[in-house]
Amino acid sequence: MWSKTVGRSLFDSKFVLSLNMEILQNDLLLRAARGEQVERVPVWMMRQAGRILPEYRAVREQAGSFIQLATNPELAAEVTIQPVDILGVDAAIIFSDILVVPEAMGLPYIMEERVGPIFPEVIKSMADVDKLEVANPHEKLAYVLDAIKIVKAELNGRVPLIGFAGAPFTLLCYMLEGRGSKTFSKAKKYLYSDAALSHALLQKITDTTIAYLKAQIAAGANLVQIFDSWAGILSPAQYKEYSLPYIAQICDAITEVPVTVFAKGAFFAREDMAKLNCETIGLDWNMDIAESRRLIGANKTLQGNLDPCVLYASFDEIKKQTRSMLDQFGGQRHIANLGHGVYPDTDPEKVKCFIETVKEYSI
Amino acid sequence: MWSKTVGRSLFDSKFVLSLNMEILQNDLLLRAARGEQVERVPVWMMRQAGRILPEYRAVREQAGSFIQLATNPELAAEVTIQPVDILGVDAAIIFSDILVVPEAMGLPYIMEERVGPIFPEVIKSMADVDKLEVANPHEKLAYVLDAIKIVKAELNGRVPLIGFAGAPFTLLCYMLEGRGSKTFSKAKKYLYSDAALSHALLQKITDTTIAYLKAQIAAGANLVQIFDSWAGILSPAQYKEYSLPYIAQICDAITEVPVTVFAKGAFFAREDMAKLNCETIGLDWNMDIAESRRLIGANKTLQGNLDPCVLYASFDEIKKQTRSMLDQFGGQRHIANLGHGVYPDTDPEKVKCFIETVKEYSI
Repeated sequence: MWSKTVGRSLFDSKFVLSLNMEILQNDLLLRAARGEQVERVPVWMMRQAGRILPEYRAVREQAGSFIQLATNPELAAEVTIQPVDILGVDAAIIFSDILVVPEAMGLPYIMEERVGPIFPEVIKSMADVDKLEVANPHEKLAYVLDAIKIVKAELNGRVPLIGFAGAPFTLLCYMLEGRGSKTFSKAKKYLYSDAALSHALLQKITDTTIAYLKAQIAAGANLVQIFDSWAGILSPAQYKEYSLPYIAQICDAITEVPVTVFAKGAFFAREDMAKLNCETIGLDWNMDIAESRRLIGANKTLQGNLDPCVLYASFDEIKKQTRSMLDQFGGQRHIANLGHGVYPDTDPEKVKCFIETVKEYSI
Repeated sequence: MWSKTVGRSLFDSKFVLSLNMEILQNDLLLRAARGEQVERVPVWMMRQAGRILPEYRAVREQAGSFIQLATNPELAAEVTIQPVDILGVDAAIIFSDILVVPEAMGLPYIMEERVGPIFPEVIKSMADVDKLEVANPHEKLAYVLDAIKIVKAELNGRVPLIGFAGAPFTLLCYMLEGRGSKTFSKAKKYLYSDAALSHALLQKITDTTIAYLKAQIAAGANLVQIFDSWAGILSPAQYKEYSLPYIAQICDAITEVPVTVFAKGAFFAREDMAKLNCETIGLDWNMDIAESRRLIGANKTLQGNLDPCVLYASFDEIKKQTRSMLDQFGGQRHIANLGHGVYPDTDPEKVKCFIETVKEYSI
C-alpha cells in the first residue's frame, strides 16, 4: 500500500476519487489533513451544530426532540449547515449521534432531558451479542445518508463535509452500561471478566461502523472522524487490547478519504496512535502540544485543542489563548478546533471570536 | 530546611516527633513513604472504609445518613477501623469527606442519594469569598479530630492512621459549581473570567486546609494525603496556575509527617509534582508505571495504581494483575493501592485477594 506521509502523490488511490469528482471552493481542511501546505489553518468545532446557536434551538423545537431532529434528514441537514453560514467554519459535520450505530444493530436508545442517552435494554450475555446484527447502513441508517446528500447539495462545494462514528470501545461502553457514567465500571467489568463477549461485541460494532462510514463517504462525506469519547477510562494495557485494534481496523478499511481519530483522555496511547493508518489525530486540552507532536511524530496532522472553557473568557483573552495555541502548533499539519465539544452555554459571539482569530492568523 | 531525599536522617525534624511519641507495630506505610527499606510493600485502598463492607453499611444505617455518620466521632471511628480488622490493610484512613472543609468555611453541603454532594449555595462573587472564613478546625471540625483520637486509642499502634483533605482546586470546583459535573465548566468559567476571585478563594481554602491538616496530625494522623480529584479537567497551564502552587503551600507547611499527593488525571503534571515538598505521589491507573517513575524521579515514593475494575475479575486474574503491578513498581518506594477509590459493588473477597496478594509478594 502507499505510504501515508507528507507530500503524498495526487494519484494516491485514497484521494484521487474525491479530487476527480468534486471541486471544493474551500478545501483547507482536506489539504491540512493530507499534510499539504495551507495558506492558513482551517478551523471547525466539535458540536458546532448544536445548542450554542439560537437558530439550532429553533429547529430543535420544531423537530420536537433530539432524536426526531437527528432522524429527520431535512432538519438534520439544516442544522448541519447553520455553523457554516453563521460562524464561518471551514467544514460542516453531519448532525447526528454516535449512538445511531447501536440502534441500527438492534439496541435502541432514548434521550432523556438533563440525563443524556439511556439504553432501556443492555447487552448482558453472548446470546445478546449474537442477536445484534451487523447493520446495513442503507437500510437502518438511511436517514443519515439522506441528510448527507441534502447537505452536499445545499453546501454546493463551499466547504467539506465531515462524517463520523463512535469508536467501537466507546459504543461498547454505552451498550453494556446502558447510560453515561463517570467510571463506566459496569461496562469495564466485562472487559476483565468476559473478554470473549467484549471482543465479539467490539468486532460486530467495528464491522457495522466500517460499512456505515463507507456509506457516509459514498453519500458525500469528505473526511471521517472516529470519536473515542471514553478512551480515558482505560489503562494503557486495556486500551491496547480493547480499543486500538478496532480503530486500526476501521482506519485500514477507509481508503477513500482522510480519517481523523479523536480519543479523549488517551494521552498514554499517543505513540501507538501514530502507527494508525489515519491522517489526523485529535488532541484534548490536557495534552501538551509540543509533547504530542514529539510522541506522534511529523507524519500526522494534529487537530485541537483549545480548552472549551477559554470561550468563557474576555474577547482579548480568547484571542491571546487562541494565538498561543496556533503558535504552538506551528501553522502546518494543524486543524484548529477545541479540545472537546463546545459547551452549550457558550456565547456565539465568543465562538466567532475564536474562529475569526484563527482565520486572521498568518502562518 | 532539610533536604527531603532517600536516606533522610532519623533526626530530621519532620519525623523525630512521631518516632519519639509512638511505637507502631506495623509502620511499613511510613517507612515506604520516607523511602526507607521495607521487607514487603504496604497496602491500603482508597475508600476502604465504605460501602464495600456489609459491616460499614450496618453502621451507616444506624447513623441515618452519610453526613450523620461522618459527624459522629464514635461511629466514624468504628468504620475507620473496620478495614484494618476485616481486610488486613496496613493503614487506616479517617472516615470523612473532603467537603467538610467548605462547610467549615461557611458553605454547607448536603448529600443526595444517587446524586452525590450538592451545595445549596455557591460562591458567585468576591463578596461571597470575603464572607467565607478561614476556619479554626478545633471549633468547626472538632468532630473529625475527635474521631481521630478515638481511632488512635482503639488502634493502639497496630497500623498508622492516614489523615486527608481535598486539594484547594478540587474544593473550589464544588464551591463554584455546586455539585459534581463531568466538565465543571461553571467552575472553570471563573478561572478564565475572574482570576482574582479564583485565587482569593484558593488561598482561603489553602489556609483552612493547612490548619486542618495540622490539627489532624496533632490529633494523631501519621501521614496526610491531599486528594486533587478533579485535577484532570485542567489544561497543563491552568494546573500550574490554579492547583500546583496551593498544593505546594500545603506540602511546605506540613513538616510533621509524610505527605502524599494524589492528583487524579494530572498525568501532564508529573514532572512538576516531583518538585513538591512531599514524600509520595499517587498514580491513577491511566499512568504507566515506568514512565511515571522516569518523570517523577527516584526521590519520591509512588502509590497505586491498579484499575479498581480489576477487582471484578476472577481471583486468578486479580493475583496476576496485582503481581504484574508490583513487579513494575519494583518493591521499594511503593505503597500498593488502587488507582482510584474501590467501587462500592466490589466483592470483599476480591478485595481481600488483592490485599493478600500484595502481602504475600516477596520483594
